[in-house]
Amino acid sequence: MRLVTYAGDGGPRPGAVVGDRVLDLGGFAGSVTALLADAAALDAARAAVDAADAHALPPLELSALEAPVVPGKILCLGYNYRGHVPDGVDPTADDPEYPDVFVKTPNTLAGPNAPVVIPPGATDVDYEGEVAVVIGRRAQRVTLEDALDHVGGYTILNDVSDRAWQRRQSQWALGKCSDGFAPLGPWIVTPDELGDPQDLLVEVVRDGVVTVSQSTSTTIFSVAYVIHHLSQVLTLEPGDIVSTGTPQKLPAAQDAHRPLAPGDAVTVRISRIGELTTTFVAAADASQEATA
Amino acid sequence: MRLVTYAGDGGPRPGAVVGDRVLDLGGFAGSVTALLADAAALDAARAAVDAADAHALPPLELSALEAPVVPGKILCLGYNYRGHVPDGVDPTADDPEYPDVFVKTPNTLAGPNAPVVIPPGATDVDYEGEVAVVIGRRAQRVTLEDALDHVGGYTILNDVSDRAWQRRQSQWALGKCSDGFAPLGPWIVTPDELGDPQDLLVEVVRDGVVTVSQSTSTTIFSVAYVIHHLSQVLTLEPGDIVSTGTPQKLPAAQDAHRPLAPGDAVTVRISRIGELTTTFVAAADASQEATA
Repeated sequence: MRLVTYAGDGGPRPGAVVGDRVLDLGGFAGSVTALLADAAALDAARAAVDAADAHALPPLELSALEAPVVPGKILCLGYNYRGHVPDGVDPTADDPEYPDVFVKTPNTLAGPNAPVVIPPGATDVDYEGEVAVVIGRRAQRVTLEDALDHVGGYTILNDVSDRAWQRRQSQWALGKCSDGFAPLGPWIVTPDELGDPQDLLVEVVRDGVVTVSQSTSTTIFSVAYVIHHLSQVLTLEPGDIVSTGTPQKLPAAQDAHRPLAPGDAVTVRISRIGELTTTFVAAADASQEATA
Repeated sequence: MRLVTYAGDGGPRPGAVVGDRVLDLGGFAGSVTALLADAAALDAARAAVDAADAHALPPLELSALEAPVVPGKILCLGYNYRGHVPDGVDPTADDPEYPDVFVKTPNTLAGPNAPVVIPPGATDVDYEGEVAVVIGRRAQRVTLEDALDHVGGYTILNDVSDRAWQRRQSQWALGKCSDGFAPLGPWIVTPDELGDPQDLLVEVVRDGVVTVSQSTSTTIFSVAYVIHHLSQVLTLEPGDIVSTGTPQKLPAAQDAHRPLAPGDAVTVRISRIGELTTTFVAAADASQEATA
């Protein structure tokens, strides 16, 4: 299934994508997170999707999509694809023994259609296209073997960063946590539909140019390992996001890279998930939109 | 005022401490966060406190206190008191130009009476007694001059850390974000009652020994500066916590330091706020308590 949260008359509604239509799932659970956490409701929703007559359903309005979940926490990996070495890490070193984990705060969450505001004075805003794991079942000290049972699905996160702020301290929080710096979506693909999470092509397209193209088969830490690992330290709850890191930009894209500016658009596309396009705007533009 | 959240019959209630009694403030707002965010309700609550007949009020049951707010985000400073240099920072360097900021996730929040579970396998758990600023009014790009107007009050946070995890990566998240690693409370002291936040003595007592004793007058970054600074990058919301860093342990305490173990208790006491005592338990003990 492809699960969405979409704007309804009475607020956000959970739904499933059926072809180019949407099936309302509000009768099964109050939110996508609640649905993921309730195996019986999820089974019932799946049966309803299988039985649905697509022609009788309303069209899926992409513009009505909101972030598919509102995560309690967003945990991100800083260094997970071979060849991608973040600022401050020795590029000649071997694979790290442990994932480097940081947090994006709740104010970073943005829906798949929300433009990202480039904060006033920000001079080095960058994108990172990532596979985001959505927790379905609470995970506390789960074994490696059981870890994937706690995954509710997969979506796309653009881990937007202000590199200038990121470099100013040892900890990256201020480079990672500006408002709206975590566009998420457009939908969650459940594990049965996604297949092997270690066989996904992650690509980023900027200005019509593919700047990132690398398979999740090249990650240092698998999704199962990351869930297992994180759950030894803290409890993962339904709806939490674990974003699995970014591949390095392709060499030509590294050479041509310039910071994101108002008017730029970045598309992250991941096989068997879909694509997430984020536009970047100046702060003043955003204010005008908010009052329009 | 001293604002508390306490367990009532119908769930958590906001209240004010009046002597050794508590005045229910549920008629003014649904929570302490809502009260802090609503200037008119806060004024009305203050008038009610001033008019209250303490003898007619129920006693303040410290055991009924919960975390005074449920923050949307908990932002912490890693290096703010002169003389305290965190792991990985050059101790001979000058004052840092910017605060080093990290995040504690929502699962870290614990009430003032909650024991902290030492995670299985954790070998180097440590405490940090800190002044925690509670945001009262949304703060987005506020000037230094206006910054304190956005503070709703002050409380105490014990920034519990697993140093072994903290040292394993460049980013500290896994050392900072175990469940319950942010005991908060016991109450929020409003700015009018607290006075100058740069004139507070922060002390920690472990096993009857004072291990930390340093004034907030020795911080590198004032509360006003930190709120101003953070608000340039992200929006602070009512109820958010900004924890202002820890002083270095006293030399004798550094020499005598051993990791926290089950049965240990740590008291953080801060002048004009109060004290927060946290007990540490093994994971098995916690399970027994939860099922008792």
